Amino acid sequence: MSGFDHVWLNANLATMDGPAEAPLGIVEDGAVATRGGSIAWVGRRAELPAHAAAVTDCEGAWIFPGLIDCHTHLVFGGNRAGEFEQRLEGATYEEIARAGGGIFSSVRATRAASENALLEAALPRLRGLMAEGVTTVEIKSGYGLDLESEMKMLRVARRLGAELPVEVVTSLLAAHAVPPDHPGGAEGYTDFVAREAIPMAAAAGLADAVDAFCERIAFSPAQTERVFAAARAAGLPVKLHADQLSDLGGAALAARFGALSADHLEYAGAEGLRALAEAGSVAVLLPGATYFIREARHPDIAAMRAAGLRMALSTDMNPGSSPARSLLLMLNLGCTLYRLTVAEALLGVTRHAAAALGLHDRGVLRPGLRADLALFRIGRPAELCYWIGGNPCMGRVVAGRAR
Amino acid sequence: MSGFDHVWLNANLATMDGPAEAPLGIVEDGAVATRGGSIAWVGRRAELPAHAAAVTDCEGAWIFPGLIDCHTHLVFGGNRAGEFEQRLEGATYEEIARAGGGIFSSVRATRAASENALLEAALPRLRGLMAEGVTTVEIKSGYGLDLESEMKMLRVARRLGAELPVEVVTSLLAAHAVPPDHPGGAEGYTDFVAREAIPMAAAAGLADAVDAFCERIAFSPAQTERVFAAARAAGLPVKLHADQLSDLGGAALAARFGALSADHLEYAGAEGLRALAEAGSVAVLLPGATYFIREARHPDIAAMRAAGLRMALSTDMNPGSSPARSLLLMLNLGCTLYRLTVAEALLGVTRHAAAALGLHDRGVLRPGLRADLALFRIGRPAELCYWIGGNPCMGRVVAGRAR
Ligand SMILES: [Zn+2]
Ligand SMILES: [Zn+2]
Repeated sequence: MSGFDHVWLNANLATMDGPAEAPLGIVEDGAVATRGGSIAWVGRRAELPAHAAAVTDCEGAWIFPGLIDCHTHLVFGGNRAGEFEQRLEGATYEEIARAGGGIFSSVRATRAASENALLEAALPRLRGLMAEGVTTVEIKSGYGLDLESEMKMLRVARRLGAELPVEVVTSLLAAHAVPPDHPGGAEGYTDFVAREAIPMAAAAGLADAVDAFCERIAFSPAQTERVFAAARAAGLPVKLHADQLSDLGGAALAARFGALSADHLEYAGAEGLRALAEAGSVAVLLPGATYFIREARHPDIAAMRAAGLRMALSTDMNPGSSPARSLLLMLNLGCTLYRLTVAEALLGVTRHAAAALGLHDRGVLRPGLRADLALFRIGRPAELCYWIGGNPCMGRVVAGRAR
Repeated sequence: MSGFDHVWLNANLATMDGPAEAPLGIVEDGAVATRGGSIAWVGRRAELPAHAAAVTDCEGAWIFPGLIDCHTHLVFGGNRAGEFEQRLEGATYEEIARAGGGIFSSVRATRAASENALLEAALPRLRGLMAEGVTTVEIKSGYGLDLESEMKMLRVARRLGAELPVEVVTSLLAAHAVPPDHPGGAEGYTDFVAREAIPMAAAAGLADAVDAFCERIAFSPAQTERVFAAARAAGLPVKLHADQLSDLGGAALAARFGALSADHLEYAGAEGLRALAEAGSVAVLLPGATYFIREARHPDIAAMRAAGLRMALSTDMNPGSSPARSLLLMLNLGCTLYRLTVAEALLGVTRHAAAALGLHDRGVLRPGLRADLALFRIGRPAELCYWIGGNPCMGRVVAGRAR
């Protein structure tokens, strides 16, 4: 008898572990068995070994690896609904900035909020993702922009992972914007990030990676390199908000540092994309931001395909440029706006999203990996991309336990 | 003592009953009282008359009139996720049509489905809308295209309204497409709609209105006029899918027949829009379809404003051009794609959506109207438009009862 703890059967599987020509790795009438927190067996039900495990009848549902939202800013104070309203009434970005809007309104609200208040505000956002089958979420800092507030955001992210049945991976994004109140300006603030924020976050175990925003309105390539060098010195991997609004060579810069991922990439050229592919980095696509800020330029998906660059897909959940609270909706946006195929979109929230976080223990259904599963009441995988809204998720399994 | 049955207080109200310069009709720290199925009192809590009614503490939530989705095709067999997948892999519309896809695949699946199967498939779609605060939904036929199948769809719509706590309003849309198997072609099928389908639906009490699709790929203006004349003879009001893909003068045609609404209107010119306004018709905007079929042309919102034309906003939930299952998301799409203001979007799913259905007893919070309420955990009305996904609805009241 196989020593399984639990068996899920009467299900179709999208293992996301298939060959290049059939990457969804579909197994019809399949079964998944777990032992402890890990997957112990995956395959056709007819071949399931004899066992004495507890059984869940999935009633024909589809089992996917637990979904992974690999790029979020879901901890923040306040929101920018008022600013959204003003813009629709014709206010310019300048007028909104003069009235105290823009990213620094989120910074003020985040600094002013207690750790508990930030946690309370983030909980429904995270629960919404979980309800769609998400089992791993990346959360960035970046609305604190001072030592205490950045650490506060990361502590909130860690607490979210401790309080809810979901794995939270954190990124220190102190290099998100230059706070206007910093006495040293952009250069001085970059020094602060490199010499204080990164070592402190690393020492406290609060950050799993370091991220930065390389853009004319944020940090220059040279400043980004200093941030990345400090991350390397602290033993932390890097990620980059790269080439979203202009081509500053962010993709190539990320590749030089072996970044886990380069994210956005609307303006990245083919050469930078090839460099990312060679470096083993993942391109994280964020169609919610493209949509919400009405950016006409889309990432060059054809060049990514040609380069063999892996693509992930994420909400970018944030109050300014992508108040997107649904990862399933990003599947539709990625297909509709960027013309991703169904397989590309689904790999982007499973296998390739895991790679974008440097996680080798999840993202596919394979023995030995974490038993993180998402169950959907759908007729075929494409339905997850096709519907606009609605939630067919009927269950999640986190580390072997139905949650 | 006032004879109220129930009082909702500790709430902010968006009555949608304000003057032109403040149409949301906001009442902070307000209260709503009901008697039977109707609203008995609306106003500031401080002015609430003494009463002995049951009280619900809304904990600072916002109360809106129950939301109204005034244009859906949510009863249908099958779905077109497979077709969506093929298109993303490069299949042309012609290839898909040759492979049996397109609208007629929905017609085949709908004809083949039993009444119970159609009901079961529609239930989760309708429940999803209700979970967002929707209390009234319009449902069209149009995937039957023969007498029995059109009546079957309308019976399913009526049953949905009987089985769930939501008001369902039906439209006969037998003039949705010309079925290729009809021996008389477009002209003969139009005769069938006018002489058989409309009188039958009217006599059976299955249709509250008659709709048609006036387009090169569907029915000509002359054919549409015959359908509308039959509706008038049967005592049913009309609506029109007008000027979605080209300007055939659908807006003006709808106005000539005093249509409740003209829907889509991407290609409608200013003159047609003025005619609609003068006729008292409502323009129903369907940004889910614009988005999903990637139609570059948007309705002329400026011309609608200039004409004083009321705008409603709806999902158009259907398997082919708008598999949209969230009315809240349409608020965001309407604002983001069409640049509707927050007030326009919110009026579009309340007051003006009621008008698009010819309903005078709902859509605003006002004494004497139906006590259909939607409660939202938000800080300001704009949040309903700002977030992309997520659902802040915390309760619904239908005809005075919390559901
Ligand atoms: Zn971001
Ligand atoms: Zn329609």
